[in-house]
Amino acid sequence: MFSPSTYRSRREHLKQEVGSGLVLLMGNKQVGMNFPHNWYTFRQDSTFLYYTGLNQPGMTLLIDLDEGTETLYGTDPTIDDIVWTGPVPSLDELAASAGIGQAREASALDTTLKNTPLERVHLLPTYRDEHRISLLKWFGLNPGEISKHHSDSLIRTIVEQRLVKTDEEAKQMDEAAAISADMHLEAMRVVRPGMYEYELMSRVHATALEQNGDIAYPIILTVNGQILHNHYYGNRIGDEDVVLVDAGAQTSMGYAGDLTRTFPAGTAFTPRQRDLYNIVLHSFESAVFRTKPGVLFRDLHYLACEKLVEGLKELKLMQGDPAEAVRAGAHTLFFQAGLGHMMGLDVHDMENLGEDVVGYPGDLQRDTRFGFKSLRLARKLEPGHVVTVEPGLYFIPTLIGLWKEEKKLKEFICYDELEKWTDAGGYRVEDDFIVTGQGYRLLGKPVPKTVEEIETVRREHL
Amino acid sequence: MFSPSTYRSRREHLKQEVGSGLVLLMGNKQVGMNFPHNWYTFRQDSTFLYYTGLNQPGMTLLIDLDEGTETLYGTDPTIDDIVWTGPVPSLDELAASAGIGQAREASALDTTLKNTPLERVHLLPTYRDEHRISLLKWFGLNPGEISKHHSDSLIRTIVEQRLVKTDEEAKQMDEAAAISADMHLEAMRVVRPGMYEYELMSRVHATALEQNGDIAYPIILTVNGQILHNHYYGNRIGDEDVVLVDAGAQTSMGYAGDLTRTFPAGTAFTPRQRDLYNIVLHSFESAVFRTKPGVLFRDLHYLACEKLVEGLKELKLMQGDPAEAVRAGAHTLFFQAGLGHMMGLDVHDMENLGEDVVGYPGDLQRDTRFGFKSLRLARKLEPGHVVTVEPGLYFIPTLIGLWKEEKKLKEFICYDELEKWTDAGGYRVEDDFIVTGQGYRLLGKPVPKTVEEIETVRREHL
Repeated sequence: MFSPSTYRSRREHLKQEVGSGLVLLMGNKQVGMNFPHNWYTFRQDSTFLYYTGLNQPGMTLLIDLDEGTETLYGTDPTIDDIVWTGPVPSLDELAASAGIGQAREASALDTTLKNTPLERVHLLPTYRDEHRISLLKWFGLNPGEISKHHSDSLIRTIVEQRLVKTDEEAKQMDEAAAISADMHLEAMRVVRPGMYEYELMSRVHATALEQNGDIAYPIILTVNGQILHNHYYGNRIGDEDVVLVDAGAQTSMGYAGDLTRTFPAGTAFTPRQRDLYNIVLHSFESAVFRTKPGVLFRDLHYLACEKLVEGLKELKLMQGDPAEAVRAGAHTLFFQAGLGHMMGLDVHDMENLGEDVVGYPGDLQRDTRFGFKSLRLARKLEPGHVVTVEPGLYFIPTLIGLWKEEKKLKEFICYDELEKWTDAGGYRVEDDFIVTGQGYRLLGKPVPKTVEEIETVRREHL
Repeated sequence: MFSPSTYRSRREHLKQEVGSGLVLLMGNKQVGMNFPHNWYTFRQDSTFLYYTGLNQPGMTLLIDLDEGTETLYGTDPTIDDIVWTGPVPSLDELAASAGIGQAREASALDTTLKNTPLERVHLLPTYRDEHRISLLKWFGLNPGEISKHHSDSLIRTIVEQRLVKTDEEAKQMDEAAAISADMHLEAMRVVRPGMYEYELMSRVHATALEQNGDIAYPIILTVNGQILHNHYYGNRIGDEDVVLVDAGAQTSMGYAGDLTRTFPAGTAFTPRQRDLYNIVLHSFESAVFRTKPGVLFRDLHYLACEKLVEGLKELKLMQGDPAEAVRAGAHTLFFQAGLGHMMGLDVHDMENLGEDVVGYPGDLQRDTRFGFKSLRLARKLEPGHVVTVEPGLYFIPTLIGLWKEEKKLKEFICYDELEKWTDAGGYRVEDDFIVTGQGYRLLGKPVPKTVEEIETVRREHL
């Protein structure tokens, strides 16, 4: 973890901004997979981690803004615990490492909160049912009623603070991206036609673990890149397949990386694969090169979409004016997703606090049309923001069938030609960038990205 | 999954045994790690899996014993789902694959249950907060009150049914144990002094994934084998360390393996390590050779403990009559755990339904003394039971210090000699067995276990 002063100064900022009342930050608990003590790998709540650095389960931080006190609630190890788990730090030691003034047994929190009017408490949105049950116990608050009690001031303060990464955080993001880069290098080197997807996936996952990291999100590794949320790994990889890998590591401190590469299982892309890949790559580079403070990420999204349309026009899959096509949403037949998102302790940073608070502040309005609505981030970029850039082309037979039936946007889509391309699959390229004073910097280290670079890796390792 | 008739006949048995009322079997949902859609790897509830074979999240099976109907509740994929996740089976198709007569949207379940008196419903113990929240929604049942409404008849029926593995289940258990064996072979081959524990752990984990399995429980891999629940992997492995690995795979159908090996990081055990290892191995073999139908597993535990005492006497760490020492609990200074447990779809099979229902049926009473209380399984063995056998020796400095201070059981413990052994670490050997008509059968395949076998592997691979 960082030094106690880092966490103390983060909390000082929070206190000044929120002003009065009680700030309740609930750490995560262990979750049983199939019985109470068979736990998933523990993942701390990122906001709790940001303000305390403490990566142990079952703790709560209560900040009384009016009294000016901070109290860490948790459970001290018993002698039984020490027999079974070895020596572990005491609650006082944990509090001290986070610069927190006092620590108390969790049972004392029950008493305190049961005597506190809910109106005094700043609550965050819940995403774990364990927290919903705690709120029921403390305040008699029904799960369905929690959202009425979210604290907008607390949410906004946290989002604005966590969005801008300090130098020590940027180093963590570099580490996460570098491990993520190794995961992709490993996949690109060891893939062989005839392998099952799960075999290749095991190497990608192990690469994160062997550097004392873990996966930041479920790995996507598939010969069907057009299936966007694909966590099935049962296909056999064919000679002429491309493999799409979307995988990222989290560091032991919890910071995330998020990269995507699409590469051939053999030594070379087929001509069609190369054409599609290069369209995506050109779109990616166009957006990256325009990344700098003051730019609306939404505009980068539009730019990337236009570049996709330009490329698809050359393949005779689209026609008409690219900007008009994008305004009409014609590109969403091939690119249904957003260009990217914020990153930090969460791979979609602070998504649990509200996508729009993070991505659409102030007057920015989310476009609710198909495709557009999937853009998580529209916000004006500032130095210290960390974003992904990840355009793609996805040929989804069901979607193509639906559009074709109603001849949707036929002024832009060449349905006759498209018939030959419905099995063209999916392509995506994704890197992580931090916005600097003048522009941007790639996090981690470069992973082969051009057709030539990728084919060189494949030839050298097959 | 197995054939629909397998699940249908399992449910028929359940219905006959339980008789009347409504049986509510809640499948598991996805759990967000750090925001709602960043999910842990999905793990289905094992009871739901046993009676349906369905491995998809968010489903519930309701069996009306009085009407004789079975209804699967879930959510049909929308066109949006199909765009993002590819083609998935419909709810009707899922029900058919499990031999379930009808399927309905989950919202219909809310209506049904809100109009059902709780007394009619057979409830199982909950271990996920998601289920506690469902029970609150359906019946207004407070989380703290759920245990009063557990259905003893349903619990007992399920336990007795799931305890006895059919031939098709035994094949799954063999597969799980075989993948687990490969995990241990990999660790035993690739360990090198100077490695970090997490580097070796990554290879063990990957071995499960690359065979389309996953880990059945968090891997224990440590140079501090005396720390029984150790999920820290940050130590560097030294030249003269032994590494204790307790790891098992689950198959894609959810059946678990659970093996432990302890082996040197170099090419050979030191003389002291060999002595301790051989004591554990002899204890292991003594218990295994006596495994057969009709034997109380508790008696195997006592036998294994006596063998440990006999070995420790030879090292002058204990004295007196071994049987008396075990009755007095003197062995628990070195072996604080139980000899083994039931296995199946859960690595501790059905632990969520109640350890005592599984391990201490009828008149068997759990001994609540330190050490003894950790024996999960006392039950008389029957053909089809699957058990682990896993004796160990654990030198826990804190515990030794406490006992020494009060000279506890000094008639059996040689505290003066013990002073030289407090840093002796931890040793365990564990395999999985199915009880047969006459005796037992090792599940999976043998993993090197004698000192000679292990040292041969180390020499060949270092």
